Amino acid sequence: MIDIDKIISVIARRDAKTAGLQFPEGLKRQGPDIAKAVESMTGATVIISGDPCYGACDIDDGLLDMVDVLFHFGHSRLLEDDRIVYMEYYHDVDVDAAVLQALPMLGKRVGVVTTVQHIRMLPRIESILIAAGKEPVIKPGDSRITYPGQLLGCNFSAAPQDVDSILFVGTGNFHPMGVQMTTQVPVIAADPFTGQARKVDVERIMRQRYAVMAKAMDAKKWGIIIGMKPGQQRLELAKRIKEVAGDAVLITIREISPERLIAFKVDAYVSTVCPRVAIDDASRFNVPVLTPVEFDIIKGLKKWDELAFDEIRGE
Amino acid sequence: MIDIDKIISVIARRDAKTAGLQFPEGLKRQGPDIAKAVESMTGATVIISGDPCYGACDIDDGLLDMVDVLFHFGHSRLLEDDRIVYMEYYHDVDVDAAVLQALPMLGKRVGVVTTVQHIRMLPRIESILIAAGKEPVIKPGDSRITYPGQLLGCNFSAAPQDVDSILFVGTGNFHPMGVQMTTQVPVIAADPFTGQARKVDVERIMRQRYAVMAKAMDAKKWGIIIGMKPGQQRLELAKRIKEVAGDAVLITIREISPERLIAFKVDAYVSTVCPRVAIDDASRFNVPVLTPVEFDIIKGLKKWDELAFDEIRGE
Repeated sequence: MIDIDKIISVIARRDAKTAGLQFPEGLKRQGPDIAKAVESMTGATVIISGDPCYGACDIDDGLLDMVDVLFHFGHSRLLEDDRIVYMEYYHDVDVDAAVLQALPMLGKRVGVVTTVQHIRMLPRIESILIAAGKEPVIKPGDSRITYPGQLLGCNFSAAPQDVDSILFVGTGNFHPMGVQMTTQVPVIAADPFTGQARKVDVERIMRQRYAVMAKAMDAKKWGIIIGMKPGQQRLELAKRIKEVAGDAVLITIREISPERLIAFKVDAYVSTVCPRVAIDDASRFNVPVLTPVEFDIIKGLKKWDELAFDEIRGE
Repeated sequence: MIDIDKIISVIARRDAKTAGLQFPEGLKRQGPDIAKAVESMTGATVIISGDPCYGACDIDDGLLDMVDVLFHFGHSRLLEDDRIVYMEYYHDVDVDAAVLQALPMLGKRVGVVTTVQHIRMLPRIESILIAAGKEPVIKPGDSRITYPGQLLGCNFSAAPQDVDSILFVGTGNFHPMGVQMTTQVPVIAADPFTGQARKVDVERIMRQRYAVMAKAMDAKKWGIIIGMKPGQQRLELAKRIKEVAGDAVLITIREISPERLIAFKVDAYVSTVCPRVAIDDASRFNVPVLTPVEFDIIKGLKKWDELAFDEIRGE
């Protein structure tokens, strides 16, 4: 699945003496073998990033500064930097069963969205929908999005609103819930790995978020977290929130953990890092951690029914 | 204990618009209050580092790049960078009881070493030793060491060898064990906080290290870890070890944890990061993690009786 030939030709073309490899967790175990193969075929010194990597925003900038070229695996292009080569990773798993299961739950005009792993299956999904008499809609996203119909956990700009339903093809709850909360269009999630489809329900996550927001309403001292990962830095947003919060400090964090948040004596945090952190890790934090959207709601800058997932939008 | 006036005058003198604050774990809780005080008195935007900080080597370079000046607390100067202001932190705790306890265990000529927290007590320690008829020796260290007689966990260059005994004033086992293994001079550790003194015993740690080395002797695949913290990068050393190891990959890690090491399929690691990591965290790793010295021993480049703690020496 890893295109070693591409790595070798990039190194040769650029005459790179050092190359970095950065893998998401699921691919890390293959790292040493790939490094060895590349070294023996190119003579370049290869260095692997050993830190966690959760997305295209999560470029190892320390390693990037050490090497001539950095190969970043598993995610599509996000940052414009010629030193980074994005090595996408596809799951060309059969989508038919899951999409067929979804059909009876879909309206006439159907937005189609997925993650980069399944992006090459979009033509197949379209043709199943057309054969079933549907009108598929595949929308380009903003500048952070490489392919029409592609989602990131922090960006749902490729999800259309002028449709009757949205079909999400992929695994997990986070992306389809985010799409439904942002678009207000009913989402059907079809998982190619299980062959199952289901209607997405955002009730539970909304109850959970409102509970965290309610807890944060009494907070006097705030910590405003700034992410240090290249694609997650939102310093201006953090400063704006700090002004509104009043008694607040700006705190940079590279990798958020409950321990790092406990270290400071504040009552609640607003996280401007990866939007998933506040939501996915909510049960691990023992102080409320809000997204910027949620903070604006409890401060009266947005209405309570405007609750949506935080997004990092491009242009 | 924190010199707010100094912070304010540095900010004013440099006309800094943004200031970073970086604290070791024990001082982090005070961070928000200090940030607020500094902001209200200077008008500068203050940003706190929320990541762990274990030493002067552990500069938050991401935060450093975001601010006009970075105040680094609790450690003495290590890196030459005008943007960093080292804010030392002293424990002016009474050393008399501990040093008096140590006296009967000391020879005539006594090297004196301590950590930066107690460095201001050196004149007092000297006068106690002289009053007891001893000859204290306080030696300057290399370029990584700010004060004569000062130790770092990675640098024992201020420990003299031409003495009968060495008196270590401070807490913990790591520094005095390191000094004894490096100098081969008997070390007496006097802890000002407990008022107790004791002869340092390196038998147990040496048994533990030989056991880890023995386990690593069968390793076929090696990972050579390069630290990403500014004062811990030893890339050339890592490359030299990789050449000797043969089947080996270079891996950068910012914050070592057992999970990050398990992620890769290798049999053993050599760590070129902070020398304490391999030793302090040995029981947490489920693969052998050697220091460069230990690796050289099992590869026959050093003798088994040359076992010492790894050091990062300056000039």
